[in-house]
Amino acid sequence: MPASLGGVFPPLATIFNSTTGDVDARAISANVAKLMTTGLAGVLALGSNGEAGLLDDGECEQVIVAAREGVPRERLLLVGVGRESTRATIAAARRAAELGADAVLVRPPSYYKSHVSNDALIAHFRQIADASPVPIVLYNLPGPTGVVLTPAMVATLSEHPNVLGMKETSPDLERLGICTALRSGRFPVVSGWAPVLYPAVVAGAAGGILAVANVLPAQCVALFEHARAGRHAEALALQRSLTKIAMHVSSVHGIAGLKAALEMTGYHGGPVRSPLVAVSDKVRAEIGAALREAKGN
Amino acid sequence: MPASLGGVFPPLATIFNSTTGDVDARAISANVAKLMTTGLAGVLALGSNGEAGLLDDGECEQVIVAAREGVPRERLLLVGVGRESTRATIAAARRAAELGADAVLVRPPSYYKSHVSNDALIAHFRQIADASPVPIVLYNLPGPTGVVLTPAMVATLSEHPNVLGMKETSPDLERLGICTALRSGRFPVVSGWAPVLYPAVVAGAAGGILAVANVLPAQCVALFEHARAGRHAEALALQRSLTKIAMHVSSVHGIAGLKAALEMTGYHGGPVRSPLVAVSDKVRAEIGAALREAKGN
Amino acid sequence: MPASLGGVFPPLATIFNSTTGDVDARAISANVAKLMTTGLAGVLALGSNGEAGLLDDGECEQVIVAAREGVPRERLLLVGVGRESTRATIAAARRAAELGADAVLVRPPSYYKSHVSNDALIAHFRQIADASPVPIVLYNLPGPTGVVLTPAMVATLSEHPNVLGMKETSPDLERLGICTALRSGRFPVVSGWAPVLYPAVVAGAAGGILAVANVLPAQCVALFEHARAGRHAEALALQRSLTKIAMHVSSVHGIAGLKAALEMTGYHGGPVRSPLVAVSDKVRAEIGAALREAKGN
Amino acid sequence: MPASLGGVFPPLATIFNSTTGDVDARAISANVAKLMTTGLAGVLALGSNGEAGLLDDGECEQVIVAAREGVPRERLLLVGVGRESTRATIAAARRAAELGADAVLVRPPSYYKSHVSNDALIAHFRQIADASPVPIVLYNLPGPTGVVLTPAMVATLSEHPNVLGMKETSPDLERLGICTALRSGRFPVVSGWAPVLYPAVVAGAAGGILAVANVLPAQCVALFEHARAGRHAEALALQRSLTKIAMHVSSVHGIAGLKAALEMTGYHGGPVRSPLVAVSDKVRAEIGAALREAKGN
Repeated sequence: MPASLGGVFPPLATIFNSTTGDVDARAISANVAKLMTTGLAGVLALGSNGEAGLLDDGECEQVIVAAREGVPRERLLLVGVGRESTRATIAAARRAAELGADAVLVRPPSYYKSHVSNDALIAHFRQIADASPVPIVLYNLPGPTGVVLTPAMVATLSEHPNVLGMKETSPDLERLGICTALRSGRFPVVSGWAPVLYPAVVAGAAGGILAVANVLPAQCVALFEHARAGRHAEALALQRSLTKIAMHVSSVHGIAGLKAALEMTGYHGGPVRSPLVAVSDKVRAEIGAALREAKGN
Repeated sequence: MPASLGGVFPPLATIFNSTTGDVDARAISANVAKLMTTGLAGVLALGSNGEAGLLDDGECEQVIVAAREGVPRERLLLVGVGRESTRATIAAARRAAELGADAVLVRPPSYYKSHVSNDALIAHFRQIADASPVPIVLYNLPGPTGVVLTPAMVATLSEHPNVLGMKETSPDLERLGICTALRSGRFPVVSGWAPVLYPAVVAGAAGGILAVANVLPAQCVALFEHARAGRHAEALALQRSLTKIAMHVSSVHGIAGLKAALEMTGYHGGPVRSPLVAVSDKVRAEIGAALREAKGN
Repeated sequence: MPASLGGVFPPLATIFNSTTGDVDARAISANVAKLMTTGLAGVLALGSNGEAGLLDDGECEQVIVAAREGVPRERLLLVGVGRESTRATIAAARRAAELGADAVLVRPPSYYKSHVSNDALIAHFRQIADASPVPIVLYNLPGPTGVVLTPAMVATLSEHPNVLGMKETSPDLERLGICTALRSGRFPVVSGWAPVLYPAVVAGAAGGILAVANVLPAQCVALFEHARAGRHAEALALQRSLTKIAMHVSSVHGIAGLKAALEMTGYHGGPVRSPLVAVSDKVRAEIGAALREAKGN
Repeated sequence: MPASLGGVFPPLATIFNSTTGDVDARAISANVAKLMTTGLAGVLALGSNGEAGLLDDGECEQVIVAAREGVPRERLLLVGVGRESTRATIAAARRAAELGADAVLVRPPSYYKSHVSNDALIAHFRQIADASPVPIVLYNLPGPTGVVLTPAMVATLSEHPNVLGMKETSPDLERLGICTALRSGRFPVVSGWAPVLYPAVVAGAAGGILAVANVLPAQCVALFEHARAGRHAEALALQRSLTKIAMHVSSVHGIAGLKAALEMTGYHGGPVRSPLVAVSDKVRAEIGAALREAKGN
């Protein structure tokens, strides 16, 4: 099992059969195999980008198995297991571990957020960390959840021996910067927001889990390496060239944008699951143009 | 099958065994049986109040069966079936209908809201209305979901023959009032916000689905009847006497507050499921005082 | 001085000379004189609708003088005096009183809201109530300010002898309903949200301060009278017929919509002050249609 | 007049006489004189930190004069002039220029934000840029205003010859990073969020306008210089040592925290203006501890 969280990861898209709408495990494995020919540190399966919220438990298992097939043992298979209840999250973490996850990513529950205090959230994460056979990674994503794990909460949880690190999916570098200083600077925080990868690494981030790494993995790895090695002119130029396409396949057009871009870069893409809808032809053309721009650099 | 949506409904609490944490179907049936001795128009099973977001599919089935047992055929069994994906919602609606639901309540999906346009939401609801064997009720609850079904969207959906009506869970009477005027004033809208039940009925609401109706069903029915019959002094006085306890068991203390109040009024209550936590002894005492105040009227 | 707050008030538009952009006091007086031929209880000068935030102190004085000219002594001249600092608000309240205001409307300061606690807000209002020569009316308008006066805060402030009542500008009838119960039901709360005027009155509101009352004063007064007298069928029908035009001249198109409607109903309208911009011809036509619809009833 | 926007600036606190509450121009000049003995690039007068929203026009003039006295001609005197109306903002910009401002900082109007479109906002800024005798700096501060200048809006405005640059007061480095790439990377953007100064500079920021630069100017300048010179280990260490005190004197305790810290570092501090309130003794002690920690580095 990989000992640490660092480097660049793609949050895998879950590929569906375009006729039946069912999970296409073979296509997922093929995407992973191709991704693993680059310098990526591993993959995240069943993140928000993986339409995890739209899958049932059986489909989740198929995705984990398909991802594990393609990820070599010396790289990290991170699996999203967040559920609304503590007990369902624990069950999902156990199942993911059985199927080969090296670590699990746990988003905060959100539906009942108005009646879940920060203390209750901490208790929730602690119970999961206690029960999970593999380390857990805290997942801060205020956009979809409306919940914020504050630096004070992360500080408390970072002391748990089974908490491996944190993913911060926002452009907020104050919170990320404070968390990177925890455990005397040895608490790994990865950014989930590609347009800020370079400043995030400079502020102490250990890497990134980035939608755009599904389609331009080599460029993302290069950006990370430039940033870490102190090649700042190169890093700034590459960051700027990646920002637009990064936004197209995440904040602007979401998973539908990502799947369109996957198809343009030689990966399996295919349909999104309803209520998500495919991008229009106009948006597809814009994404194509943004991809070409980014590759030009 | 009841032809219409109207009157007062309790959104049932899902009762758990206090040792194992599993669904206690017998306790649910017992609560329903007792509730059905009053003038309630039926019940809602698996609403937000029913911790639906914290249950797995098997548990949902147990709850529906338990509720159906206690609800006579001439009253309405409404069942919450909202899921994040269209296909899972359709599957849940079909299963609920098989198990005896008279109609299903469908909340909007929320996790991917930044990439689900109003048009995509309308398509989502239409597909469910097309596929559901029983009528669907639209469910607007901006608090937990961060999604608003606008009056314009509701107007469009109200024309679908399998859309029975709407539940509006907010204190916003502008939106509710506009929706009650749809279908020439024959589109039933029920309020999910007890502190505004009286003005909501006056603005055209057909009834209410109210947490407090689990613990003070007779008073809620009386308030509705006063409002509908134009006994305004009585209605205003009763509304004011119910508002405080209504807030304690919903917006202020949520399901934990409701379960505490259930125990004080002769119903099964018991534990909430984590990440929810029980109310403190201090809050329990406040709830007891608010119950006594409300009963004094 | 009128002893109480009740009935229907228009929040006056501030009319500008269309060449110079300066305050046109004569046009304001003319509008007020015409409005005072109806059953309105008085007027509000310098509310949000009066572009108060866009005027300097000298202009504010002109507006107050112009309004006072047209409002007979037996009706109420309410003047908005909210400023960001306590001391500027007190100075504005004193000046308004000198110029003839019967009472002043005080919105909460908002710019520094993240560092103004509820206790600090209460202290702010208390100092103003202590210093103002005329009674103050609390003004809750969460939309523009991002600040909420909670029922608990209002309860505390309602005990001050120089606090006359409250204006609630939102469609939230929970908060309004709770506040109408203060001082044993004798704390006057007026609604600033015309689409909920009828249910608000039923929930205990003493009246309304409504943009639409600038253009359809008789209908607004009739709605209020129906509601208060318990003529519910008439009230509901009239509420429904007014809601659309009420939204056009407030929440949907704001002051620009109101000024367009003023011109169509025989009042002075004219330009809005930048950064506000006039409505398009298309919107103007929609407003005209909504006015005709409302008058048809 | 300085030709450009870059380096570190303190947003001056406006000092009040502790007996009368009036502006204490002499104390402001003294603070500026002391600040100007360090490597600061100039000062911002009448920013949010300067309680600008709580001052009247005459007081604003006193502050500008006092600041100009202390700022040598070869450094930049930036003056906040944002008002709610376009015409008041233009008048304030002209007056500031007469009194010696080198450039003016213009926040977006916010009170009527629901009826001010992005196009109307652009028109507002353009009119000000056209009319101002000195260059204008765009000011993005979503916290107090609830308004966001999007990168697309900034791009449009950056083409105006009298728009000098931009201040971004948020921890969002995506927006900042995109704006730094405008005008082929020659559009100066300064950060108003000290906890992200280092990553902001790396992402292309030209400097910072930082509350903490009022109390620890030398350290802020050193951090900026380390970041710009590529001394990354030093920069990261210094950033981490400044973050806590930076938060205490801005996001956490605001101006009251800043004034307490000013007094502990040999500057004039004194009272804040109501509705702001002084920090408690407990908070004062925490700020003292945070200052000592930061100076230890």
